[in-house]
Amino acid sequence: MLASTLLAKKRDGHELSDDEIRFLIHGFCQGDITDYQMSALAMAICCRGMTSQETATLTVAMLESGSRLPRTMHDRPRVDKHSTGGLGDKVSLILAPLLAACDVDVPMVSGRGLGLTGGTLDKLESIEGLTVDLTAEQMAGQLAQTGCFIVGANDQIAPADRRLYALRDVTGTVESIALITASILSKKLAANLDALVMDVKTGSAAFMKTEADAVALAESLVSVGRQAGLNTIALMTDMDQPLGSTIGNAIEVNESVDVLGGQHGPVRDLTVRLGAELLVQVQMAETVDAAEERLCRAIDGGQAMEKFESMIRGQGGRRSGPLTLHPPTPILADADGYIASFDNQTIGQAIVALGGGRRKAGDPIDHRVGIQVRHRIGDRVQRGEPILVLHCHTHQASEYAERLHQAITVSETLVRRRELILRRFH
Amino acid sequence: MLASTLLAKKRDGHELSDDEIRFLIHGFCQGDITDYQMSALAMAICCRGMTSQETATLTVAMLESGSRLPRTMHDRPRVDKHSTGGLGDKVSLILAPLLAACDVDVPMVSGRGLGLTGGTLDKLESIEGLTVDLTAEQMAGQLAQTGCFIVGANDQIAPADRRLYALRDVTGTVESIALITASILSKKLAANLDALVMDVKTGSAAFMKTEADAVALAESLVSVGRQAGLNTIALMTDMDQPLGSTIGNAIEVNESVDVLGGQHGPVRDLTVRLGAELLVQVQMAETVDAAEERLCRAIDGGQAMEKFESMIRGQGGRRSGPLTLHPPTPILADADGYIASFDNQTIGQAIVALGGGRRKAGDPIDHRVGIQVRHRIGDRVQRGEPILVLHCHTHQASEYAERLHQAITVSETLVRRRELILRRFH
Repeated sequence: MLASTLLAKKRDGHELSDDEIRFLIHGFCQGDITDYQMSALAMAICCRGMTSQETATLTVAMLESGSRLPRTMHDRPRVDKHSTGGLGDKVSLILAPLLAACDVDVPMVSGRGLGLTGGTLDKLESIEGLTVDLTAEQMAGQLAQTGCFIVGANDQIAPADRRLYALRDVTGTVESIALITASILSKKLAANLDALVMDVKTGSAAFMKTEADAVALAESLVSVGRQAGLNTIALMTDMDQPLGSTIGNAIEVNESVDVLGGQHGPVRDLTVRLGAELLVQVQMAETVDAAEERLCRAIDGGQAMEKFESMIRGQGGRRSGPLTLHPPTPILADADGYIASFDNQTIGQAIVALGGGRRKAGDPIDHRVGIQVRHRIGDRVQRGEPILVLHCHTHQASEYAERLHQAITVSETLVRRRELILRRFH
Repeated sequence: MLASTLLAKKRDGHELSDDEIRFLIHGFCQGDITDYQMSALAMAICCRGMTSQETATLTVAMLESGSRLPRTMHDRPRVDKHSTGGLGDKVSLILAPLLAACDVDVPMVSGRGLGLTGGTLDKLESIEGLTVDLTAEQMAGQLAQTGCFIVGANDQIAPADRRLYALRDVTGTVESIALITASILSKKLAANLDALVMDVKTGSAAFMKTEADAVALAESLVSVGRQAGLNTIALMTDMDQPLGSTIGNAIEVNESVDVLGGQHGPVRDLTVRLGAELLVQVQMAETVDAAEERLCRAIDGGQAMEKFESMIRGQGGRRSGPLTLHPPTPILADADGYIASFDNQTIGQAIVALGGGRRKAGDPIDHRVGIQVRHRIGDRVQRGEPILVLHCHTHQASEYAERLHQAITVSETLVRRRELILRRFH
């Protein structure tokens, strides 16, 4: 086989065979296929797409470039959730210990924030002493003892994906349903899961801006996941406004602790629903309703919080009471009315500019920067009432308070609330 | 500007601005744009195409990565011909001295053979002592004295194209009208020409297999050439059968000398027509007919042959009489009938397999390998008459004679002759 012939085949819109895809990925790992050939392939895939058969083969080839988290006969069911990301999405922090409290294992491999999207690892690192780098032995140990961990990716997990992603990032080839699907699923397959639930966000604060793109990705993930042998469900959820009442790092840990402590709202609703999908898939519950009841009991009975504390301690974290934030600056409504929309780009950029996010990989993070979001779209507000509260260095507060004030539209007329969970794919 | 953003723009089918294209090519030359970014761009261009404005900007940016052959006030008009290549195409060897004999300068930069297509440089090197590597001073000197040279490309001529082509060759990104256009024209612009005629071949022995592709390339070359400031004409010509009566290296030099000596046939017809287009463009003749008459006089009066001998001597070549070939093996018609078709792939592959061409760049060439083609499509042949004569090492003769025998179809019923010149683009 000749790489240039296979690239030309994809360029002309033809389907690559399983052997051809394995030849390319294996060659890439061995150094026989160069970076410039791989980036040209990625561009051809962006332009011409891949069938779900091709995507499944690509996924498995990337998985097989690395090792898998071992399983034994006596393991508990093993599940995971993955979100395509958005403002204020702290579901992983709550869901991992919540599911562990319901007797399933959750070996979560998460990412860092970049651009407007925060990262679960950065949020966790707001906790003093906490590490997201565990050895294979530590991971196995914590899974046996606590039933969950949240760590960063390492060189053993789908290294072909890691190298390909680095190329895609600088060659304009990130936006491909096939490549995004293979990248997500190759890493999830490496964890040897029994079931995966995907939270595909749609809306102005999400990676997938249009609902059509989100639907295409959700369908691809479910179909390719199953072809590759992983039981996958997807929910498409609203990201036209921040999820829950906080955006930032330490501030989102605090909200997560509040939800684990019993606080109601959209974060609890979404977390419980995602967890319920998984419990049904691994036959720990008969229906989503029954599963949701079980998960709510684990929150309200305190077992989820115990698992959270145990996970944090297991990863070296020391925590007592809410994490410290920068001083608060309230941003007030200047008229009576209804919250109509959030300018999520402006909100996300403010967090990054204030040091709470990254412009480029490797930038340091100021964990104490954050925004409280007091209302959701459709809420009634009164003139003079705080809509947002900004936590940042005092010398930056007035400038960014003004920008954030502009980022929220208040309407005189009634505004409809939005559904959080828009569609289910299975 | 960020390279990945520009790559994504082309990926999504948008037009790049002049500044954006210059940024990418300039960055590629400086090392700021990597090989893997450039190959991804090439793939995006293959999939999404470029407008003629984009292609012209790309062409000029690649031209400006190198230097141009100088011009002075007192120069003769300067012209060149470029062919997209095909079996038996030796027109350059005849046309350069023929035009020089008509008082125009022809600074020809040619290529080597690869795969099924022979290269003008390889053919010339059949002549003992001849070099195709001239210094800038030698080129200027030979142009002043003889009016023509045929040399290989060097690092000063459009180096960005040279590097991009090396990438395209191994990333399945050769087949793009925009990239082929920019590659050809950037090198031709470097010669500071007054006019260029393109011979775009179409048919089973050509690079452009379909007439639609050939038309698209011809239109692109004419339109982009003019936008980039080069007066360009194109002829689309038939390549469903070999051009003229020889294929190989030394054997094509011998045929070229025969044509310069007055031999009639398709090679003379095409050479004279291509030359005539150029003489009209530089106002050395009023009509194509008048220009053809002038060119025929330069052949029949011996001036073209004198220029050929002068060009060969100027490049160090020593020649007396026809060049030596391997021993001949005739391939005979086994029935009466009409020549219906040539299997050009088989013929071209036989030349390569016998050592007369290259499988990969850098392979050595056996100049004495060749095939005489005694007939054209539509000719009447009689059983037992030679159709081809193969020149090769005797131990390979019987195997390849049999293969070549299979490569020619003789029909019992009358077969129409083909037009040589199919269409003109201006």
